[in-house]
Amino acid sequence: MKLATLKGGRDGRLVAVSDDLARAADASAVAATMQAAIDDWANAAPGLESLAAAVNAGETETFPFEPAQCAAILPRAYQWIDGSAYLSHVELVRKARGAEMPKNLYDDPLMYQGASDSMIGPGDDIQLADEAWGIDMEAEVFVILDDVPMGIAADDARGHVKLVGILNDVSLRNLIPAELGKGFGFLQGKPTTAFSPVVATPESLGDAWDGTKMTLDMEVALNGDPLGHPNAGTDLYFDVPTLIAHAAKSRRLAAGTILGTGTISNHDRSAGSACLAEVRVIETIEHGEPRTPFMRFGDRVRIDMRNADGNSVFGAIDQRVVKYDNPA
Amino acid sequence: MKLATLKGGRDGRLVAVSDDLARAADASAVAATMQAAIDDWANAAPGLESLAAAVNAGETETFPFEPAQCAAILPRAYQWIDGSAYLSHVELVRKARGAEMPKNLYDDPLMYQGASDSMIGPGDDIQLADEAWGIDMEAEVFVILDDVPMGIAADDARGHVKLVGILNDVSLRNLIPAELGKGFGFLQGKPTTAFSPVVATPESLGDAWDGTKMTLDMEVALNGDPLGHPNAGTDLYFDVPTLIAHAAKSRRLAAGTILGTGTISNHDRSAGSACLAEVRVIETIEHGEPRTPFMRFGDRVRIDMRNADGNSVFGAIDQRVVKYDNPA
Repeated sequence: MKLATLKGGRDGRLVAVSDDLARAADASAVAATMQAAIDDWANAAPGLESLAAAVNAGETETFPFEPAQCAAILPRAYQWIDGSAYLSHVELVRKARGAEMPKNLYDDPLMYQGASDSMIGPGDDIQLADEAWGIDMEAEVFVILDDVPMGIAADDARGHVKLVGILNDVSLRNLIPAELGKGFGFLQGKPTTAFSPVVATPESLGDAWDGTKMTLDMEVALNGDPLGHPNAGTDLYFDVPTLIAHAAKSRRLAAGTILGTGTISNHDRSAGSACLAEVRVIETIEHGEPRTPFMRFGDRVRIDMRNADGNSVFGAIDQRVVKYDNPA
Repeated sequence: MKLATLKGGRDGRLVAVSDDLARAADASAVAATMQAAIDDWANAAPGLESLAAAVNAGETETFPFEPAQCAAILPRAYQWIDGSAYLSHVELVRKARGAEMPKNLYDDPLMYQGASDSMIGPGDDIQLADEAWGIDMEAEVFVILDDVPMGIAADDARGHVKLVGILNDVSLRNLIPAELGKGFGFLQGKPTTAFSPVVATPESLGDAWDGTKMTLDMEVALNGDPLGHPNAGTDLYFDVPTLIAHAAKSRRLAAGTILGTGTISNHDRSAGSACLAEVRVIETIEHGEPRTPFMRFGDRVRIDMRNADGNSVFGAIDQRVVKYDNPA
């Protein structure tokens, strides 16, 4: 089953989408919004599954599915937590600095609490006031959880993954060092996050979801040029159930929690990168300095994940960076 | 005007409360929930003000207001961001470590993105699995904002403060150092936050709200013994409008954002402390080691703020720490 949220109001409008992303049908008879559905997933899921099956079979009223009309699957969410679980990325960043990789990062996941109050859709502009902030993408896999009890074990966490998608964790690289130095995490350095047109149930993904992670390549392109195609199932050091258990150690996670596994990075350098920071770090290691600039106003980033048949699984994120003028 | 959320469902039920906190009336004819009210504040506020006036005048049907029946004002919120803006607290922590106070902390606020998916009420138990985590309170002032545009100036931010209250930012002191060391902020170290029974509009607070901060004492007691009564208006280095502008530098803040100013701390040591960490830091400076333990199962924390007439403004937070058993 694939679901999407169309733009409209603060929470959008839930629709069921055909597997080929061509057609959609209004889901409001089952649940008006994605949050309403995940709040009562056990009751909502069967009705949504029936609707999606009817959309696929051409047995219900549908309309053309237009990714540009999509909001984020949760235009505002109660929680967005993001790991940095591809340690190849962290190792490269450290190496470029000439720093040792801290041993504890192999036992204790890096994970931050992100801003969840305002998410954007796959075609929405990335609006920012200043190119000098160092505008970058991070192509990630995310999951949506139902209610997770405090203190859950990783083995028991797997069943709480109800939906899977991809996102662009927009990052402002030149604001981040000062924030990390203060220790309190990201506030200005991680602005609004953008989401794939659709999410899919784990069951519908076949081998592409192995129960703990996606196993497909993440294709990232900047202004039409490929930046990388790292595999989401390779070199993931902490899988999704492990990250859920980490986040739930001292508190419960409410239904609709969005959990990400961090920018994808493979040790195999021929896979390229899923963010410019990593491209620049590799350039620094090889040439002594970065050569690729961060994104500028007018630049376009495209993020997609295709299955073995070459078809997009979640639809593409395809966004432009545009200048934002602060209120006078 | 004073408002509260009574327990019931995921989002509770909005009520208007009398100024003396004795009586309440259902507000569902205006807005069923606090989130619904703040989503459309310009339209909801007049109706809520009328209802609150009628409650105060005894001119509508009311029932006794019972703080124990209160949920958090927003039982789940789309955003909770918390400053650490009483630098006396930060200075003491550094001094105990023998470390210099970093100069940039006087220009660049400490602020973190907190977990907002699951908030608890003023009488709810603080459920935690392990005393060894170092269980502590932090008594804070918070505000609830309506929609704040990205890039707002501090001078323009003041009008976005729609409601004011107090909270207990429960902190796990022995989990925090490792989290701060990783730079990614708090994930396990700041579990579920507890809120005062009511919130009040800035206009209703008179001189107690000066447009940028509260100016009353925060009274904190542990098992009935006073811990401190620092004044919220004294030694606040970054006021509320400044913190709003800081948080909104690279993104908008959606309606219902909860913003805190951090555990209250005065340079005047006779005011005592609003958290045990600070008590222990002062003991370390004076005696070479802390003497006061963190909270244990069965301990009770009480947090209140009274006006010049000695009446509680927001009602008291009064909670017990209890052992939580992880799911088998």
